[in-house]
Amino acid sequence: MSRRFVAAAAQLGPIQREDSRASVVARMLALVEQARRRDVRFLVFPELALTTFFPRWYFEREEELDAFYERAIPNADVAPLFEAAKAAGIGFHLGYAELSETGAGVVRHNTAILVSPDGEIALKYRKVHLPGHREHEPQFPFQHLEKRYFTRGDLGFPVADFLGGKAGILICNDRRWPEAFRCLGLQGVELVAIGYNTPQHYPRAPEHDRLQDFHNHLSLQAGAYQNGTYVIGAAKAGLEGGCELIGGSCVVAPTGELLAVAATRGDELVAAEIDLDRCAEIKANIFNFKLHRQPQEYGRLVEGTGQ
Amino acid sequence: MSRRFVAAAAQLGPIQREDSRASVVARMLALVEQARRRDVRFLVFPELALTTFFPRWYFEREEELDAFYERAIPNADVAPLFEAAKAAGIGFHLGYAELSETGAGVVRHNTAILVSPDGEIALKYRKVHLPGHREHEPQFPFQHLEKRYFTRGDLGFPVADFLGGKAGILICNDRRWPEAFRCLGLQGVELVAIGYNTPQHYPRAPEHDRLQDFHNHLSLQAGAYQNGTYVIGAAKAGLEGGCELIGGSCVVAPTGELLAVAATRGDELVAAEIDLDRCAEIKANIFNFKLHRQPQEYGRLVEGTGQ
Repeated sequence: MSRRFVAAAAQLGPIQREDSRASVVARMLALVEQARRRDVRFLVFPELALTTFFPRWYFEREEELDAFYERAIPNADVAPLFEAAKAAGIGFHLGYAELSETGAGVVRHNTAILVSPDGEIALKYRKVHLPGHREHEPQFPFQHLEKRYFTRGDLGFPVADFLGGKAGILICNDRRWPEAFRCLGLQGVELVAIGYNTPQHYPRAPEHDRLQDFHNHLSLQAGAYQNGTYVIGAAKAGLEGGCELIGGSCVVAPTGELLAVAATRGDELVAAEIDLDRCAEIKANIFNFKLHRQPQEYGRLVEGTGQ
Repeated sequence: MSRRFVAAAAQLGPIQREDSRASVVARMLALVEQARRRDVRFLVFPELALTTFFPRWYFEREEELDAFYERAIPNADVAPLFEAAKAAGIGFHLGYAELSETGAGVVRHNTAILVSPDGEIALKYRKVHLPGHREHEPQFPFQHLEKRYFTRGDLGFPVADFLGGKAGILICNDRRWPEAFRCLGLQGVELVAIGYNTPQHYPRAPEHDRLQDFHNHLSLQAGAYQNGTYVIGAAKAGLEGGCELIGGSCVVAPTGELLAVAATRGDELVAAEIDLDRCAEIKANIFNFKLHRQPQEYGRLVEGTGQ
């Protein structure tokens, strides 16, 4: 299989609370069709791509919350996406809210998967770095209740053989943490799919609102460069539920260079040709981990446990 | 002590092999005088600031190599620098090659120190991430023999109380490794001094020569942002011993923004006002380590040992 192909972010514009999954999937199908015409082989949809970004609201009633989760993937709503991608020979990344019934009760994760061009799920990841807060904070114009609505991911930072290379997933806030990127890099990752929903306004430090796009690209570019991997970042963007989300979906080279960047905050295909063999330029040289890392000096990085 | 003051990189242009330490210190004194006039309180000189970047040559004879090392700091050559900085009330960072006589013989480190405005050494660090190679590689136009000429640092990644804040040091290649920045960040660092000697030409991957300045700033900006710390990067720059070194000395804010950047590859003061209290904007929010890091997931980062 050639390791040189076209990869793309499938940025989605806003999804309102009243929008049906069917209407969202119809928009995704239009992007798959654009991707097919542009010979895309890998297409990255955003985090929580099937609904509005619901952690911005505090829900009293569990039934209200449940409406945003998937009990199985694929399901009837997303089956047309799986079918269209398979028909086009396109592998894709999809983020969604996952609800599992376990012996201990309902468990909720912020989850993403890689689906091979043959329609099989090749990798599943559950978000480790849940941002935001657990309790209702009504003093702010919107909430960021990921710590309330999701359990921390329990699958580690896995990678999979995918499209002739090693692929991994990070989700939104994970991308800001070099530890997360490095856990993938140490497994030889060459292609990282990252979906995100990032508000332009950060209520706790509004003086940084102007920097949201810069911080997004800085994190993605540093993670790509410092691990010698391609990164595809896909935003859900635009004014959604009264909250403006940044765009900036992009394809980043293992040199950290931006190969393609979104020009809108709407539905948009952001495509670039990539060549997984170019990862070696970085991995074999400046970031040759075996020659140059000094793990015995990094003990502080693993002290303690997260909240 | 006010935590708001002017900090600066004291970029040095090239130092040739025949240049005496006295001539280098004379250039440093001119920069101290400029800094005094601009009310600078903290001044960062480059890595190995007292001599040419000698690891570019393979030396057969130990005496030739020894000529580039300091047996004590301060010594007669650098005493005028210590005196002038103290008289001006300026704290500074100085990188130098350190030769220690131990029971086991001579040990060589790539070392840097922070010197308080009262002339006392407040912090000493020995470079952990030694780049380059151990053996002579005559097929290349110049060498990068840091792995041959230095022993890996044995002081960890220390921080010190300095100028009213927490300060640390990284040296050159350390800045590319997020692990090194994080070891300082986890100790609450607010100000990181980083000297570097970075060739424009990278013989193992010359297709990246055009990216050296970008990679320098990407690493410094990501390290600053992801740890909520000011970073002062100071280059030795320009055509030195037949090898062009990048400049780009800079002051980086805890937001990752470049507050000041060198305009030349010569001796140049690169100054900006900083306010250590602004580190909290990042440290208390997006990079609140206690709330958001997940160390139990990072086990891979400390597996193995360096070469």
